[in-house]
Amino acid sequence: MRYTLAQKILQRGSREPIGEAGSIARCAVSLVLANDITAPLAIKSFRGMGARKVFDKDRVALVMDHFTPQKDIASAEQVKGVRQFAREMGITHYYEGGDCGVEHALLPELGLVGPGDIVVGADSHTCTYGGLGAFATGMGSTDIAAAMALGENWFKVPPTIRVEFSGKLPKNVGAKDLILFLIGQIGVAGALYKALEFGGQVIADLDVEGRLTMANMAIEAGGKAGLFPADDKTLAYCMEHGRGAAESIFPDPGAEYERVLKYDVSAMAPQVACPHLPENVKPVGEVKNVSVDQVVIGSCTNGRISDMRVAAAVLKGRKVAKGVRCIIIPATPAIWRQSMDEGLFQVFMDAGAIVSPPTCGPCLGGHMGILAGGERAIATTNRNFKGRMGSLESEVYLANPSVAAASAVTGVITNPSDL
Amino acid sequence: MRYTLAQKILQRGSREPIGEAGSIARCAVSLVLANDITAPLAIKSFRGMGARKVFDKDRVALVMDHFTPQKDIASAEQVKGVRQFAREMGITHYYEGGDCGVEHALLPELGLVGPGDIVVGADSHTCTYGGLGAFATGMGSTDIAAAMALGENWFKVPPTIRVEFSGKLPKNVGAKDLILFLIGQIGVAGALYKALEFGGQVIADLDVEGRLTMANMAIEAGGKAGLFPADDKTLAYCMEHGRGAAESIFPDPGAEYERVLKYDVSAMAPQVACPHLPENVKPVGEVKNVSVDQVVIGSCTNGRISDMRVAAAVLKGRKVAKGVRCIIIPATPAIWRQSMDEGLFQVFMDAGAIVSPPTCGPCLGGHMGILAGGERAIATTNRNFKGRMGSLESEVYLANPSVAAASAVTGVITNPSDL
Repeated sequence: MRYTLAQKILQRGSREPIGEAGSIARCAVSLVLANDITAPLAIKSFRGMGARKVFDKDRVALVMDHFTPQKDIASAEQVKGVRQFAREMGITHYYEGGDCGVEHALLPELGLVGPGDIVVGADSHTCTYGGLGAFATGMGSTDIAAAMALGENWFKVPPTIRVEFSGKLPKNVGAKDLILFLIGQIGVAGALYKALEFGGQVIADLDVEGRLTMANMAIEAGGKAGLFPADDKTLAYCMEHGRGAAESIFPDPGAEYERVLKYDVSAMAPQVACPHLPENVKPVGEVKNVSVDQVVIGSCTNGRISDMRVAAAVLKGRKVAKGVRCIIIPATPAIWRQSMDEGLFQVFMDAGAIVSPPTCGPCLGGHMGILAGGERAIATTNRNFKGRMGSLESEVYLANPSVAAASAVTGVITNPSDL
Repeated sequence: MRYTLAQKILQRGSREPIGEAGSIARCAVSLVLANDITAPLAIKSFRGMGARKVFDKDRVALVMDHFTPQKDIASAEQVKGVRQFAREMGITHYYEGGDCGVEHALLPELGLVGPGDIVVGADSHTCTYGGLGAFATGMGSTDIAAAMALGENWFKVPPTIRVEFSGKLPKNVGAKDLILFLIGQIGVAGALYKALEFGGQVIADLDVEGRLTMANMAIEAGGKAGLFPADDKTLAYCMEHGRGAAESIFPDPGAEYERVLKYDVSAMAPQVACPHLPENVKPVGEVKNVSVDQVVIGSCTNGRISDMRVAAAVLKGRKVAKGVRCIIIPATPAIWRQSMDEGLFQVFMDAGAIVSPPTCGPCLGGHMGILAGGERAIATTNRNFKGRMGSLESEVYLANPSVAAASAVTGVITNPSDL
């Protein structure tokens, strides 16, 4: 049988041959993840099951990233409970405070996820690690509790939609635009329970950070996973980030796909997802006269060093428009530090932006820039559901970091090419 | 009549001669201040009075500092209302987002307060500006509404306690220790409705930032104001901070004081205020085996550049203890920028600390580092009331930045001289 990427990776965790789409696979997992919102629920289930210890103290990651630095007593109590559990279990990869970053930026950076891994996380954007050739998917806290105890899960082998991008990316168009464009094409349920598998010359040319951005938003099309081949770029990334030597993984030629979608990107404009769904996607030029009160540049989607550089290139020598709050959130302490060392923070501060410590923060309406009724934000984040960043009467537009930065400068949603 | 500093400054705002302590003075105010917590209440009163415009659009300062970047919908709605009011009134000194810093650090930095000013603010730490020789005091939102409308207030002329410090400050002992020591001596009601007037060689030698730190905590002894002479150092500070030329102000020799307290500081140790009152002050050496979960370095008390430098000097080449969150909050964007430019952030990040954007944040239990039950913090802030930084079952110890930084390194409350 010729395997898709999803089948090929699942095979690595299974003693039995992986079957066709729709069949059930029982797989060992490489890593189990939870955060400060979901870990307390998972721990409660874990204890409720009578579990006494985690399957492997080096293969459970608990990242207290959503409300850090703790925004209120409730979030502080959540973290306290997880901290006690982590100590009790001797968990190696527990992150809070100065060690903490946005989980889906932190784990790749630390080499904790890599090609061929099967990762389950109590967070919907766990699919991010598909950018490194891992089969990674979000699950409910009860499933995560079982995985923490047993080190395995069952998976329904997903049908795969293959998406191939050809051509050459225009200026100011990147990974975020590709995934927004795709979600605009197939809709928020277009890949429901399915795997998205990316390929084509544009993907081969894309750096790993861009692939992580794209894989991250697979879930916004309903995808169970968003998968990229592990190629030389992936292997180089793994060497740089403490993962060490890794093997290439490609889908088998002739594997069975539910659909194959092909797009030429050469004429693509920067994409913007309008309220209140990630599928309401338009080229930026069609989003006219939309003023913004806030700009957020960060998150597990676009809070990496390459995103910081893009934002700084636009903001350099410019000012954030009067009345606009521009909040920049490097996703991990290492990215924060590198941004500072590269002089990006000088650019941000000269422009009048705010630099936040790493946190998920406003992306989920958590803290660090919440919207009042009638306010509007453009953000490099991944969801623009009604009320996602605050009031039910607020609006969120999603875009790439150059569009977000350009919009901060003008105060209206702007194509950076028009600055 | 020979005037105390309080009388002398009040005289500047009054058409009638200022009387003795206990008499009533009606004074024009130089500046009226409110923040994101208090301005909404003041604005409601202002409108309730039927006021149509503020007395002077250049003499009302509205600083949205307590929960910035907005921590939740409620705080975002508060800011939105104040923003609308500021636009409607054409208020010049409205600060939010990237322009915003902790009010009592921001206004001196911008030259908006200075010697001889009479400042009223809907914030108890308005007394900070006494460090520049201003008569500055906190008032309720209704009084602030009246002052916003009329540009004046009545004041009961306060009796004055004069406090003179002589000798030479030992290493690691500074302004924060002087004021904590004093509060320990006279108690949290020791200066109730009274002015504290500071003098002596130690005060003459103290820089303006240290004086602001001390004046800031006058209210923690119940003081209506904490007053420093405006000397050459003050005038130099005013020139540097856009205030321009200013006049010296000293109390009259022979002015009438309720009490005169004299302390020699030469043998003073760093001071620590233990839970749950700022008067529970002990030399750091008597605070033994007290572990901490969190360290906060910032606030209107100790978030200035001199405080950042002190913290960095202790943290340089050292690491924050495992399990401790060390949150550093430069009080204004300019201080943030200068700290970065001086390389202090490299020290903080190497140590494993978190650098926050300017905000009041955890000081008042607002956000950006809230404590769970059973947790303990040491902070350079000004209040350690029960539940001040979070859970009612948490504890806060107050200290200077070098003690706080040393405690971050060891994880227990520590004299920096013992590192």
